[in-house]
Amino acid sequence: MSTINRQWQLASRPSGEPTAANFRLVEAPLPELADGEVLVRHHFLSLDPYMRGRMNDAKSYAQPQPLDAVMQGGTAGEVVASRNAEFAVGDKVVGMGGWQEYSVVGAAQRGMLRKVDTTHIPLSAYLGTVGMPGVTAWYGLNRIIAPKAGETVVVSASSGAVGTVVGQLAKIKGCRAVGLAGGPEKCAFVTDVLGFDACIDYRQHPDLKSLSAALKDACPQGIDGYFENVGGVTLDAVLQRMNAFGRIAVCGMIAGYNGAPIPLTQPQLILVSRLLVQGFIVSEHMDVWPQALAEIGALVAAGKLKYRESVAEGLASAPEAFFGMLKGRNFGKQLVRLV
Amino acid sequence: MSTINRQWQLASRPSGEPTAANFRLVEAPLPELADGEVLVRHHFLSLDPYMRGRMNDAKSYAQPQPLDAVMQGGTAGEVVASRNAEFAVGDKVVGMGGWQEYSVVGAAQRGMLRKVDTTHIPLSAYLGTVGMPGVTAWYGLNRIIAPKAGETVVVSASSGAVGTVVGQLAKIKGCRAVGLAGGPEKCAFVTDVLGFDACIDYRQHPDLKSLSAALKDACPQGIDGYFENVGGVTLDAVLQRMNAFGRIAVCGMIAGYNGAPIPLTQPQLILVSRLLVQGFIVSEHMDVWPQALAEIGALVAAGKLKYRESVAEGLASAPEAFFGMLKGRNFGKQLVRLV
Repeated sequence: MSTINRQWQLASRPSGEPTAANFRLVEAPLPELADGEVLVRHHFLSLDPYMRGRMNDAKSYAQPQPLDAVMQGGTAGEVVASRNAEFAVGDKVVGMGGWQEYSVVGAAQRGMLRKVDTTHIPLSAYLGTVGMPGVTAWYGLNRIIAPKAGETVVVSASSGAVGTVVGQLAKIKGCRAVGLAGGPEKCAFVTDVLGFDACIDYRQHPDLKSLSAALKDACPQGIDGYFENVGGVTLDAVLQRMNAFGRIAVCGMIAGYNGAPIPLTQPQLILVSRLLVQGFIVSEHMDVWPQALAEIGALVAAGKLKYRESVAEGLASAPEAFFGMLKGRNFGKQLVRLV
Repeated sequence: MSTINRQWQLASRPSGEPTAANFRLVEAPLPELADGEVLVRHHFLSLDPYMRGRMNDAKSYAQPQPLDAVMQGGTAGEVVASRNAEFAVGDKVVGMGGWQEYSVVGAAQRGMLRKVDTTHIPLSAYLGTVGMPGVTAWYGLNRIIAPKAGETVVVSASSGAVGTVVGQLAKIKGCRAVGLAGGPEKCAFVTDVLGFDACIDYRQHPDLKSLSAALKDACPQGIDGYFENVGGVTLDAVLQRMNAFGRIAVCGMIAGYNGAPIPLTQPQLILVSRLLVQGFIVSEHMDVWPQALAEIGALVAAGKLKYRESVAEGLASAPEAFFGMLKGRNFGKQLVRLV
């Protein structure tokens, strides 16, 4: 076993798009384990859009990512040393180990490390469909949109880690599921593999009028629920098509993460259509995680909930893979494989 | 008793600000009452911001006001003839009689006419605090904002028919109530007579930065609930000051009624602060009216809920009074007195 731990630190905060210069790859010695501690070797790092927001030093829902510290993020791996009776060498675990090869989890942080069963579910899925992104989809769909059978649910970034789950769960509930994705390949995956009723290639509809018309075609009965991941013109276009008493779960607004303005041009539609618009952060609703993960895990194990992963190879690839994800170059859940 | 009924009709739809040319004053004969019908002489007409929206021929929550028909709206008056056993001559009633001197209400429309007790509550109040505007305030505050004691509630148009009730009910619940109003006279009324903790003169803060700073001063603990009547820069500024898990009841966006764009510049704050933003129309929540009117009526009768009226004299004054209200020239509930 190595005694060196390589890690990505945040070297500086981005102005606009993040670049490689914002990150620094460093080597640190692995410490001796204290009593109660566990050493985890990471097999997969999770790359998620929320990390972009935390790179800014602005008011947000989370503390900013500290400078000169390892980039925070979800990880899946294996216990390689343990001085904690709850964890044995060889246990598969998920946690928040960050962008590094190893992490040490202390006894007081035990809630941060969770043993998982990889008999029927691959380890990497616990960072996506059977992890935070999946619970995010479950919460926004069930607790905010709360669709009835026959209603129409639209989700942006529909080939991504969250969007894939939103639309498939909506279909299981008897809804019409309509996705938005970038490019014909992703759209074909969303309809043909995931089983959405329709998917709009937003690149073919760069302006409000065109996108609004495409939504009208794809949603002949209007839109009852919208799962918002992107913001900008997409939100404007969806608002024009929302039915009375529609619900919008606001999960992300990736279009604004680099500081560009993303005005909502017709907020009066919230009144005209008597909409409910609600922002949420899944980590603030830990009470739903057990139920959500149980439901999602059973569906994945039964092959009824499909997903796709973009896997970058090796720790060195993490920043570039992250930039690509922010630009939509990933296709499914973005991971970095270390082992 | 007159046999002629003078009435204001909508002659044309406004482009931008409405003008006198959009209205037409006509005389119509009063019909003979059929069996089951009631003839009401209007003492007061209610002028309300929602009427502006209905003058447009656009998608909205209500059918547009028809052209060449009497302007629709709330009325309070007295039964002057009746062929209906439920109503006697001399009964004080409120209904939706429109901008005219008399209205005939049929047996099948009985839900449109409601007898009221003017022993402890003046007739005109049933068009304001103890009527639709009051229930609007009650619904948005209790069912959407749902504030806890100690929280801060902000309301725009706070000297108006709805805003006065929102802030006073919030105070009764133990909240800090902060108003927005136009000019020092209205602001003094809001704090000194109505008992709000603070009132911001928005005319002194025409830009986002200034208004946001004024809100910070007036709301040292941030904003937990916002009752939205105006839209535009006010909503932008409030969003910057909302606390996590804040609630915004969207009741009106008067700034956009003439078709001017009122973009919301930072919709991402809905996510950052995990806000709930909900539009509503009080006429779609008839189930709450009895409870709301009972609570509000008791408070008004006990002198614990204060209000103010702007009364224009005579039917001929209705359009000008309406234009003034849309520009904030009224001070309190805008009425037209006919008798």
